[in-house]
Amino acid sequence: MKNFGIAFLAGISALSGVASNVTESGVENCINISTPATTNVPEAQFPRVDNEGRAYFRLYAPEAKDVKIDICGKKYNMTRDETGGWAGVTDPLVEGFHYYFLIVDGVSVTDPASETFYGCGRMSGGIEIPESAEKASYYNYNKDIPHGQVRECRYYSEIEGSQRRCYVYTPASYETDTDRRFPVLYLQHGMGEDERGWHQQGKMADILDNQIAEGKCEPMIVVMDYGNCGYIFGAKPGETREEFGASFTPILLEEIIPFIDSTFRTKTDRDNRAMAGLSWGGHETLETTLRNLDKFSSIGSFSGALFFLNNGLENAYDGVFRNADEFNSKVKIFFLGMGSEENFGSDKISEALTDAWINHVYYCSPGTHHEWLTWRRCLNEFIPLLFK
Amino acid sequence: MKNFGIAFLAGISALSGVASNVTESGVENCINISTPATTNVPEAQFPRVDNEGRAYFRLYAPEAKDVKIDICGKKYNMTRDETGGWAGVTDPLVEGFHYYFLIVDGVSVTDPASETFYGCGRMSGGIEIPESAEKASYYNYNKDIPHGQVRECRYYSEIEGSQRRCYVYTPASYETDTDRRFPVLYLQHGMGEDERGWHQQGKMADILDNQIAEGKCEPMIVVMDYGNCGYIFGAKPGETREEFGASFTPILLEEIIPFIDSTFRTKTDRDNRAMAGLSWGGHETLETTLRNLDKFSSIGSFSGALFFLNNGLENAYDGVFRNADEFNSKVKIFFLGMGSEENFGSDKISEALTDAWINHVYYCSPGTHHEWLTWRRCLNEFIPLLFK
Repeated sequence: MKNFGIAFLAGISALSGVASNVTESGVENCINISTPATTNVPEAQFPRVDNEGRAYFRLYAPEAKDVKIDICGKKYNMTRDETGGWAGVTDPLVEGFHYYFLIVDGVSVTDPASETFYGCGRMSGGIEIPESAEKASYYNYNKDIPHGQVRECRYYSEIEGSQRRCYVYTPASYETDTDRRFPVLYLQHGMGEDERGWHQQGKMADILDNQIAEGKCEPMIVVMDYGNCGYIFGAKPGETREEFGASFTPILLEEIIPFIDSTFRTKTDRDNRAMAGLSWGGHETLETTLRNLDKFSSIGSFSGALFFLNNGLENAYDGVFRNADEFNSKVKIFFLGMGSEENFGSDKISEALTDAWINHVYYCSPGTHHEWLTWRRCLNEFIPLLFK
Repeated sequence: MKNFGIAFLAGISALSGVASNVTESGVENCINISTPATTNVPEAQFPRVDNEGRAYFRLYAPEAKDVKIDICGKKYNMTRDETGGWAGVTDPLVEGFHYYFLIVDGVSVTDPASETFYGCGRMSGGIEIPESAEKASYYNYNKDIPHGQVRECRYYSEIEGSQRRCYVYTPASYETDTDRRFPVLYLQHGMGEDERGWHQQGKMADILDNQIAEGKCEPMIVVMDYGNCGYIFGAKPGETREEFGASFTPILLEEIIPFIDSTFRTKTDRDNRAMAGLSWGGHETLETTLRNLDKFSSIGSFSGALFFLNNGLENAYDGVFRNADEFNSKVKIFFLGMGSEENFGSDKISEALTDAWINHVYYCSPGTHHEWLTWRRCLNEFIPLLFK
């Protein structure tokens, strides 16, 4: 920190709102019926969540004229008390992880009491509205089971002329079974996110640790890299929408896969290599795998941003769907998932694939939107199918 | 992201300030003389830094009445243009990494264009004011050299009754020299920070990678855990200032070290175990090591928050300094560092130790404050001394 004085003042002005005495906002009695969100920074008592999924927020902002909560597509007014503390409460929210912002006099800011998560093209606040312990069991991190590691790795990209970063999950047995080689899943984030998303928002390590401990999925390495689509509605100058993020495919094929195969004890044949992605990462996954089936045997698209039906299934991806027998013999698992409450039409694509006799697995997450809980569930459904 | 509509609006409102046309703030011509800070989120063109260390900021905030930059102990007014974009520029800033905030109508917020860093007890904005390429060479990450990995690990703490997280740097040779065992440095952050600090703000992996590649330091494992002092001027109810963070020592000795020694290929004797920390982490380091010299052979305090001279050197740490011969035979490296512009008195402690014939190394970083550049330099001076 710069010096203690500054740090002290910054901390106090940002966080001491937790002690303010808001009496007209409906949150005055929330302490006894709610608990601090698991997504808070250490010791922060707000935001809090109650049993019905309402979230309670506070901010100390005596000079502000208007403060709102911006979460799940809705804005909620916060109320000022006489000391300058603001407080507000939401309607019951859908379970799972939600990005959120506070809007201070029109400026969308992160809540200083929240951890931050790269999403929406910026570091965003985030809050976990807990599911029941039973429903959340598959990503519960607090079980005394063997834990894998998530490793931040650097490699030099000739294509980009600079270092890149990826995260690599290795299962617990990677440390103990030191002669064993492992299959690899390449797992991509969505638009406005980056290589941190699957670990931090998606809880992928917890999902893998739990399934591996219970013998439900094969121990595997999972590689998460930056899909070059981390800015919002990105298309850089000179780039069309179709080209957005397309620069990732050659980096994956020519640089990331060779780096992973030379650094880790991987199985390097196509039978032991899968790729999946969410939203725009689903688009990237299909663009990459369906044109390179010599390199990938299993494919997952979770709420994929897929437009290929527009030109007819038979014309998509160099005609890969024209010969169902050939496709079905090559692709071991073709998985399409989505949330029941979103409009990313994996269901329509599934119908078209069924009509074309293309083998695939379709999964619909009940009650969830275009959000991380959908994708945690998709991953949880996808990985037990792999590398059998 | 929740849905594209929200994400889109959030992204635009936060970041489109980069396109605003501020003409009265002295920043209108900055584009040609400055470059985007390396600490920005992808594609963000502001903040920018010029050759003299001035930082240029922008924020789109049409409804705000007052916006300031808060950096390096000073506040700078930003200026509004007719579109609602605000812009401002700082004086030339000291080289290195600085936490910073924008103050919007009195509320201290993180700049949406900045990466965030856990410091000041919250997720903070940060900006790197670059040194010359020559001076920054020791933490330059863009060299084509073998890179170590930084691994996020989980372990169960019986003491706390929950999972904890640590980061473990393994050198590149850990992957290739698979029979080799390595010495271990335990490295602690400061008050208001956490186990991420040394990697993200401190660039420890880059410092280690560079020295190892040049043969300047022994390849070693570095463990970074949470020192239980991540809140500001923390003392929880019932905790005195002296006790602040003291709960970390038993966790380190009884849980972290056994976890590391059973998970990684470590050398487990005291000759191959060192500990260092910055600021409050320096305090924790001395409290831990000087009472447990059977477990540690080398010790580093970087701008340590050290108060032990108050009661006389001879009374400090159970009298460990009373017998210089014994101390000097046990402790291989006792390193004290600080910045020339700060008032954390490692220099005074060095004088007292010299008077008491206690062998130690004193390093003063020229021109730097109680900030991360001081600590990067301290680490760079400390590690070549270890494990010889």
